[in-house]
Amino acid sequence: MIETMILHRSIRKYKSDVIHDSLLTKILGAGIRGSTTGNMQVYSIIINKEEEIKRKLWEAHFKQNMVIEAPVHLTFCADFNRFSKWCEQRNAPPGYNNFLSFFTAAIDALVVAQNVCLAAENEGLGICYLGTVTYMADQIIEILSLPKLVVPVAAIVLGYPNEEPGLTDRLPLDGVIHTETYRNYSKEDIDHIFEAKENLLQNLEFIKENKLETLAQVFTEKRYSRKDNEYFSAQFLKVIEDQGFLINR
Amino acid sequence: MIETMILHRSIRKYKSDVIHDSLLTKILGAGIRGSTTGNMQVYSIIINKEEEIKRKLWEAHFKQNMVIEAPVHLTFCADFNRFSKWCEQRNAPPGYNNFLSFFTAAIDALVVAQNVCLAAENEGLGICYLGTVTYMADQIIEILSLPKLVVPVAAIVLGYPNEEPGLTDRLPLDGVIHTETYRNYSKEDIDHIFEAKENLLQNLEFIKENKLETLAQVFTEKRYSRKDNEYFSAQFLKVIEDQGFLINR
Repeated sequence: MIETMILHRSIRKYKSDVIHDSLLTKILGAGIRGSTTGNMQVYSIIINKEEEIKRKLWEAHFKQNMVIEAPVHLTFCADFNRFSKWCEQRNAPPGYNNFLSFFTAAIDALVVAQNVCLAAENEGLGICYLGTVTYMADQIIEILSLPKLVVPVAAIVLGYPNEEPGLTDRLPLDGVIHTETYRNYSKEDIDHIFEAKENLLQNLEFIKENKLETLAQVFTEKRYSRKDNEYFSAQFLKVIEDQGFLINR
Repeated sequence: MIETMILHRSIRKYKSDVIHDSLLTKILGAGIRGSTTGNMQVYSIIINKEEEIKRKLWEAHFKQNMVIEAPVHLTFCADFNRFSKWCEQRNAPPGYNNFLSFFTAAIDALVVAQNVCLAAENEGLGICYLGTVTYMADQIIEILSLPKLVVPVAAIVLGYPNEEPGLTDRLPLDGVIHTETYRNYSKEDIDHIFEAKENLLQNLEFIKENKLETLAQVFTEKRYSRKDNEYFSAQFLKVIEDQGFLINR
C-alpha cells in the first residue's frame, strides 16, 4: 500500500478502455469503509459515464479534456439530505442546515474520495482530482440535479492511464510537519523549504514561459490569483447558502 | 490495500508501546505523496507525543481518554501561512485570505490525513478521527500556537491497538451512490436504506439506553443536536475568520 501511495501521480491522459462495473463496485465498496462522523455517512457519490452528461461536466470543469476522455467521472458530495429525510421520517426533527454540518459532511466526502482514489490506483487505474469542482459548484449542482443539503466538494476522473508521468516534487517532510507546537517559519526556513522546488528545471522553464521573475508569481498572477480566489469564494459561499447550509451566525 | 480498507475500524483503546520515529516518518512521508491542489501543499501536520501538551489536547477533545493513551496525536491543518510567506519573499503578493483558499487548504489537509490513516493501518497501527477538532478549533489553535492562515481541520490518534472491535455497519452501497444524476430518495428508499442499521442489536439497545423511540432521535437529540450544531457552527466560522480567512462576500 505504501508503495502505491509513494508512486501516486495524477493522470491526465486516459485510454478509452471501460472500467468494468464489478471493478468500480469493488473500489467504491472499499471507499465507503473509511471513517465517517458518528457513522452517519453524510456523503453521496455521483457516477458519470454517459457522453451527454460528461460533456456538460467538461464545460463546467473548464473544458479539461480528461473529463471526456476518462471512462468514469465521480463527484463526491457533502450530503445531509438523505440523513435529514431519515430523521424526518422517524419523528426526529433534524438540525443540519448549518455550516458545521456542511463541513462535517465535506470531511466525510473527502475521506471517501481519497479512499476511492487509493483503491483505484491499487487496481492499476489512474486518477486526477478536478479542483474546478468548488469553483463551478453551482453549474455542477444543476447538471447533476443535486437537491438542498447536497454540495459537491471533490471530483475525480478515473481510467486506465495513457501516459506515464514522473513523480511530482514535494516539499521536504520537515517543511510541513511541526513537533509539539507550530514553529513559525523564518525567512531562512522558507528559502530552505522551497529551494529544491524553485530549482527544478521544469519550474525554471515555467517562469520563463510566463515571462515572470519568480515561481511564486506563477501562482499569484496566473494560477491562483487574488481576483479569481475572491470571485470563487463568493460563488462557493453562495452555493453553500443556496443549498440550505446557513452561514450566518 | 483493499483488504486494509475493508478491515478498517476506529480504535479507541491503545497499548502504551511507542511508535518509532522511523515508522512515523515512513507513514507521514507516504501521506504527503497524496494529491494536492496545484502542488501547493497548503497544509501542516502537528505531531504531539509529550504528556503536557497531550493533556491540554485531551481537555479540548472533550476529555476522550484515547488522546492521552495513544502514543501519537496528529493535527492536520489547512495552512496558507507557509505558502503566503514564500510568496511575500518572492515579490508575489499573495491573495489567499479568503474562504475558497481556506476550503482548498482543508481539502489538501484531509487528503493527507486519510493517506496517513491508511499507511498507519497498513503498518499494523490503529487510528481514530476526533470529530471534536472543528468544535474546539479555537482552543486547539491556542494549544498548538497556530498562526493566522492556519486552521485545524482533522485530528487523529495513532498507536498499537489494545482492542479488536468488529467492523461497524455501513449503508448499502446503492444507498450512497447515484448514476448520472442524483435520484432523490422516496419514503420507501429511506426505509430500505436504513433498515439494516435500525435493526442492529446494538442500535436497538442504544435507543433503549437513551429512553428514546427511534435511532434517528439518538442523533438529533443526543449526539448531533441542532443546538450543538448551531453553537459550534458559530464558533468554527469565527475561528476561520479570526485566522484570517475572510468569509464576508
